[in-house]
Amino acid sequence: MDHKDSVSSIRVFSLNCWGVRYLSKHCAERYAMIADMLHEEKHDVVLLQEVWSEKDYLFLKKKLASSHIHSHYFKSGVIGSGLAIFSKHRIQDTLLFRYSLNGYPYMAHHGDWFGGKAVGLAVVNIGTLTANFYLTHLHAEYSREKDAYLPHRVVQAWELQQFIRHTSAGADAVVLGGDLNMHPQDLGNRLLTSYTGLRDAYTEANHFEGCEDGLTLILENPFISQKVIAPFEKGIRIDYILFKGSCTADIQCASMYTTKGSIPGRPFPYSDHEALTAELHFDMLAPSEAYGDFRARSCNCAEEEVAQLVDILTEARTEVKVGVHCAKRMRETATRTGVMGLALLLLELAIAAVPWLALGTQQTFPFPLTSFYLLAALCFAILLCTSLLYVFYTMELKSLQGTEDQMRLAVGALQEKLRGFPVVEQQERLGK
Amino acid sequence: MDHKDSVSSIRVFSLNCWGVRYLSKHCAERYAMIADMLHEEKHDVVLLQEVWSEKDYLFLKKKLASSHIHSHYFKSGVIGSGLAIFSKHRIQDTLLFRYSLNGYPYMAHHGDWFGGKAVGLAVVNIGTLTANFYLTHLHAEYSREKDAYLPHRVVQAWELQQFIRHTSAGADAVVLGGDLNMHPQDLGNRLLTSYTGLRDAYTEANHFEGCEDGLTLILENPFISQKVIAPFEKGIRIDYILFKGSCTADIQCASMYTTKGSIPGRPFPYSDHEALTAELHFDMLAPSEAYGDFRARSCNCAEEEVAQLVDILTEARTEVKVGVHCAKRMRETATRTGVMGLALLLLELAIAAVPWLALGTQQTFPFPLTSFYLLAALCFAILLCTSLLYVFYTMELKSLQGTEDQMRLAVGALQEKLRGFPVVEQQERLGK
Repeated sequence: MDHKDSVSSIRVFSLNCWGVRYLSKHCAERYAMIADMLHEEKHDVVLLQEVWSEKDYLFLKKKLASSHIHSHYFKSGVIGSGLAIFSKHRIQDTLLFRYSLNGYPYMAHHGDWFGGKAVGLAVVNIGTLTANFYLTHLHAEYSREKDAYLPHRVVQAWELQQFIRHTSAGADAVVLGGDLNMHPQDLGNRLLTSYTGLRDAYTEANHFEGCEDGLTLILENPFISQKVIAPFEKGIRIDYILFKGSCTADIQCASMYTTKGSIPGRPFPYSDHEALTAELHFDMLAPSEAYGDFRARSCNCAEEEVAQLVDILTEARTEVKVGVHCAKRMRETATRTGVMGLALLLLELAIAAVPWLALGTQQTFPFPLTSFYLLAALCFAILLCTSLLYVFYTMELKSLQGTEDQMRLAVGALQEKLRGFPVVEQQERLGK
Repeated sequence: MDHKDSVSSIRVFSLNCWGVRYLSKHCAERYAMIADMLHEEKHDVVLLQEVWSEKDYLFLKKKLASSHIHSHYFKSGVIGSGLAIFSKHRIQDTLLFRYSLNGYPYMAHHGDWFGGKAVGLAVVNIGTLTANFYLTHLHAEYSREKDAYLPHRVVQAWELQQFIRHTSAGADAVVLGGDLNMHPQDLGNRLLTSYTGLRDAYTEANHFEGCEDGLTLILENPFISQKVIAPFEKGIRIDYILFKGSCTADIQCASMYTTKGSIPGRPFPYSDHEALTAELHFDMLAPSEAYGDFRARSCNCAEEEVAQLVDILTEARTEVKVGVHCAKRMRETATRTGVMGLALLLLELAIAAVPWLALGTQQTFPFPLTSFYLLAALCFAILLCTSLLYVFYTMELKSLQGTEDQMRLAVGALQEKLRGFPVVEQQERLGK
């Protein structure tokens, strides 16, 4: 069933399925609709996010058994990563990279932490071409004005670009699909695209059909609450298909489509997000054109681009530093509360011990028993919670500081490049 | 200070520093000894493990400021990953991959979980050569006969080989140093070396000096307890320097050295592990020789090798399945205990509520108050602990099942390769 002949164009589909069982509206019906549509459309590669239940993945897998014989579900965290890939072409290999930060476990109503958000990589052989498909879903933005998760999302964007850069050297083509939870001009998005050289299918497409401005969360969608969209006029664009070629293959986006909030002949849309479809055209480059170092492209990029990258990195570092500051403050608060809990417990025990130690005097217990035990239990609970929080914030702090170190190192390497050394070296090598 | 000229040989050093502050013997003195030796020996790249305290890293960094101007400390988990790299050559880029499994948090006396074990990647430019240095430290083996952590270590070895394969395509040379906590013929080691093609510096070295059989944990080391080594005669080999070249560079191990349990003129050795030094020789291949696909090598490997890999993978899958079985059983135990705790709590409340509800009759409380509160607190503690354990085991289960899925996929791809399809395809492409 594999397509061994030379494939020159592929269709890639991406959708955030909003698949929270029992909580998402019409979940089962929507999955049935999605399965029918995918079976009929027969996209080459389907990248799905928020497939939270493995049962739903298995349902899709069964329904798509004849149209997409290869598939993989990325398992992670408590609930799962929610990431699933279906492909007409053989998936050669997969790898899951878990982001080091992903919200807070005690923010259970936001739920991100339990999802174990990650980026999944599937190496897919399409004819003679080896393409790396990445799919991911970053931490949600619950408030644009007061976004407590911004440092976490910047760290995720940083780790995402690192992961893509380091794992894509052997690939002819790279495609990233997913819900980035970032607007096109957001810091994390700029960091991702300028560092990796990934191009946005929406802006690059020769032909586009769909929502105005390529929006993927729109008011017209009946599952979207007014409240979420209200500050943004018509809607927001947070789902993307990004792509790039390599020195062995040229890649262009011929056309791009999004759904428009309703599906003709259906009672409701596939999800609260709009679905994206991109048609990508490949041109394999002949060996003579292709020779060179995979890294040459990134080294030979123009000086302004490197300078711009340094600016973006500096901005990102500032954001991460804000995160470090917050995490330190939270950890201090946890420590102080814990110490108070301990002090209270010791005080209580001391007061209780005084008459017990003062033998010979009358042995009346200075507390009502109920209050004594309740207070002791409260103190223990405080101690336990603050200890867990202390451990958690320490881990958060390590991750943030680690990212900041890596960013500092990267800025150093870029500034070295700006001084012109490696460029000369690279040219020497290529000219050798 | 960077070496821009063509470097044809490098010396790589690896040591597990046993740097647990206040617990490891002579910790500060040993770090001072290590710093002196490194400063004097001026190895090109130094890979250190178990540098648990950032203060010790900063101490080394200060001491090595003139001999190794580039360095990076990989931060992770609660304590840190313990991984540090020092280099005479510029570190271009770094990436940290955290293993999805790493022991159990409640096994605090083993401590592995808190370390947040990971593999660190540093991309180092050595003259015109780009080398990927990986350093890692896998979960310890506390009992060879009854190794409860074997599935975790197999998952770590699997993730390590995945990470190396996927990130090394753009590198001219790959070097991995670290404490793998696996004997040479252990499953995880075979999985790692046969999948990545990494070669063991000890077996490949033209010249070797050091402990018999290349052992790195030996009886002669005064920090080693008899108990650990007793079942293995002279000692065990669990620290390694592994390497491989690429289609752009040939790499050979000219010589390899280990320390021998004592340092001439010093009161004690550097650590409880022996230190490794490997001298690697490079030959850059000319573009005409070098052209080809980075993946060609892995695709063109002999049929027997692929068949052998399938066998090793099958063995690893079995081990992971054992892990899945154990995790399920542990989760069931946690669930049952939690349900019992809840039932006990409800029973207690019911008994207490009976006289309170039976208005009109005399209101004697059926429990001594102290027992009532103690029992309630116990029930709450059981509920809390089992809930946390349930969440933890679910995450463990997801990781194990995810790895098993990936292994199944990999076996499928390898069997496809055995049938000869991709080899033909690859040859076609190369001949094009």
